[in-house]
Amino acid sequence: MSIVAGIDIGGTNTVLGLVDREGAILAERSIDTTAYPDPESFAEAIAASLRALHEHLSAPPPIAGIGVGAPNGNYFSGTIEEAPNLRWKGVIPFADLLRDATGIDTVLTNDANAAAIGEMMFGAASHFRDFALVTLGTGLGSGFVAGGELLYGSTGFAGELGHVIVVEQGRRCGCGRRGCLETYVSAPGLLRTVAELLSEQGFGSSLSSIPLTSLTAADVADAAQQGDALARLAFERTGSLLGAALANTAALFSPEAFILFGGLARAGRLLFEPTQREMEARMLPILKGSVRLLRSALMDRNAAVLGAAALSWKSVERA
Amino acid sequence: MSIVAGIDIGGTNTVLGLVDREGAILAERSIDTTAYPDPESFAEAIAASLRALHEHLSAPPPIAGIGVGAPNGNYFSGTIEEAPNLRWKGVIPFADLLRDATGIDTVLTNDANAAAIGEMMFGAASHFRDFALVTLGTGLGSGFVAGGELLYGSTGFAGELGHVIVVEQGRRCGCGRRGCLETYVSAPGLLRTVAELLSEQGFGSSLSSIPLTSLTAADVADAAQQGDALARLAFERTGSLLGAALANTAALFSPEAFILFGGLARAGRLLFEPTQREMEARMLPILKGSVRLLRSALMDRNAAVLGAAALSWKSVERA
Repeated sequence: MSIVAGIDIGGTNTVLGLVDREGAILAERSIDTTAYPDPESFAEAIAASLRALHEHLSAPPPIAGIGVGAPNGNYFSGTIEEAPNLRWKGVIPFADLLRDATGIDTVLTNDANAAAIGEMMFGAASHFRDFALVTLGTGLGSGFVAGGELLYGSTGFAGELGHVIVVEQGRRCGCGRRGCLETYVSAPGLLRTVAELLSEQGFGSSLSSIPLTSLTAADVADAAQQGDALARLAFERTGSLLGAALANTAALFSPEAFILFGGLARAGRLLFEPTQREMEARMLPILKGSVRLLRSALMDRNAAVLGAAALSWKSVERA
Repeated sequence: MSIVAGIDIGGTNTVLGLVDREGAILAERSIDTTAYPDPESFAEAIAASLRALHEHLSAPPPIAGIGVGAPNGNYFSGTIEEAPNLRWKGVIPFADLLRDATGIDTVLTNDANAAAIGEMMFGAASHFRDFALVTLGTGLGSGFVAGGELLYGSTGFAGELGHVIVVEQGRRCGCGRRGCLETYVSAPGLLRTVAELLSEQGFGSSLSSIPLTSLTAADVADAAQQGDALARLAFERTGSLLGAALANTAALFSPEAFILFGGLARAGRLLFEPTQREMEARMLPILKGSVRLLRSALMDRNAAVLGAAALSWKSVERA
């Protein structure tokens, strides 16, 4: 048996796991991302945690490689670039730092790309060579796989489906532009749609009594399940926009499937039905019926750690 | 020296060329696509023409392979599928027919894909591993290259940029849907925009005295060069829509360049200026300045034959 380390860097927590080739997480721990003043001390802390995790296994093999999923992670350079939700600014050569701290080969990519590789190795995409994983959380991330290979593009930043502009002069986006898909299709996007519907329809919905800053996507899903018409319509609009964007994306990539992951995907049929319906209605005739819409098979496991580990496995096996 | 055959099947004419590895066309001829009642007799006619071309070369090497660019050509299956501008309907196993008629290995793809491979082997994309070729003619075709490989998708029909829907409830498209990019950005799309502007602005333009069915994209370019405001605005709108679509496409693929080819691309700055301006204005900040807009280097050569030949060279060299 051999093992790799998968590391998921989040704005708040960073999760480390030791993972075998079948995707079993043999050991796992979490550290506080915000506790380290500079990336060097953070890399040292990860190295120490990995050593501790490794020592607790009985008769462990050496760690063959490290994979990291990080916000704004660039696979080509191994850098984390201007990540808005991390305290370290600028371009951080994090794969190098971690390689220096551990003595172990380290590869890094962004979290959605790592999730796509994890889905291919351990999840719902094991039989696919052309698919996209779409993560619906605080933003909309995506990782595209074409011919079995992750698509990085010339800069390493390909696959930004969340930043395709879908509404002219639409909602303001954190990227500085307007109308990006993720301002509509993400957990905050759903809440902005609730606000839009409250403005259109008045305050008859049960959601109107909750401050928007306290409201969660799960609250909207609960209200919809209980028959709240506005909450249902919020999912309808969200799914319709996602379906339209997926149909356009299919015309470019002709994937076997889109796989949805993340908090919004937990809403199940509330989201999947309008998405599927609109995607198929708008599909280029020659592609009709060729693209499946699936739920991630890693939703209830530690998908981010598995994705980062899968990235490392790919690198180890290629070397 | 060795040679391959490049064959460009068009609705009216089919052009055959014998091409060396440097992209020199050593011999070329054209046959009438419409003269053959069935694809079998058409394949026999191509085989006979290739033999005749080959015999006229002095001391020729054998033909190492045949590449075919065809409307609705599918690389995976070697079939031509429901091509609207060919008389043979249904799914035609044309690579097989031509292999049988010639005894030579044959590969086939659609014309825009072939043009992208030609551009990579002989043209403006020789240093690129991530780019898209966009052909602007009677339609808008495109071929996407990612990591040095043409992107076919799971069906073989990836890269349909012309059928991304860019205007809700927009112009009717030949594909049966509405608002596809090619209904705006193509030679006929430009003329539809002229009609739209005539309806908006009245008939002050010099173009209003020409029947729309006689008008060509070159006429609109000539009028624009001579200062006709409506003709200029038609190119502005066309380029703006193209630039917006390219910025969205860049967020998915992060290419080094978009390379424009075909009749509309001959309009030069009239088209390139608004396209470049709008593309850059809408570019995702992390990609700003990373994507070039270029003119094909094969515009004044037989790009379709060279593309088909390049497809064959790729196949021959891989075998």
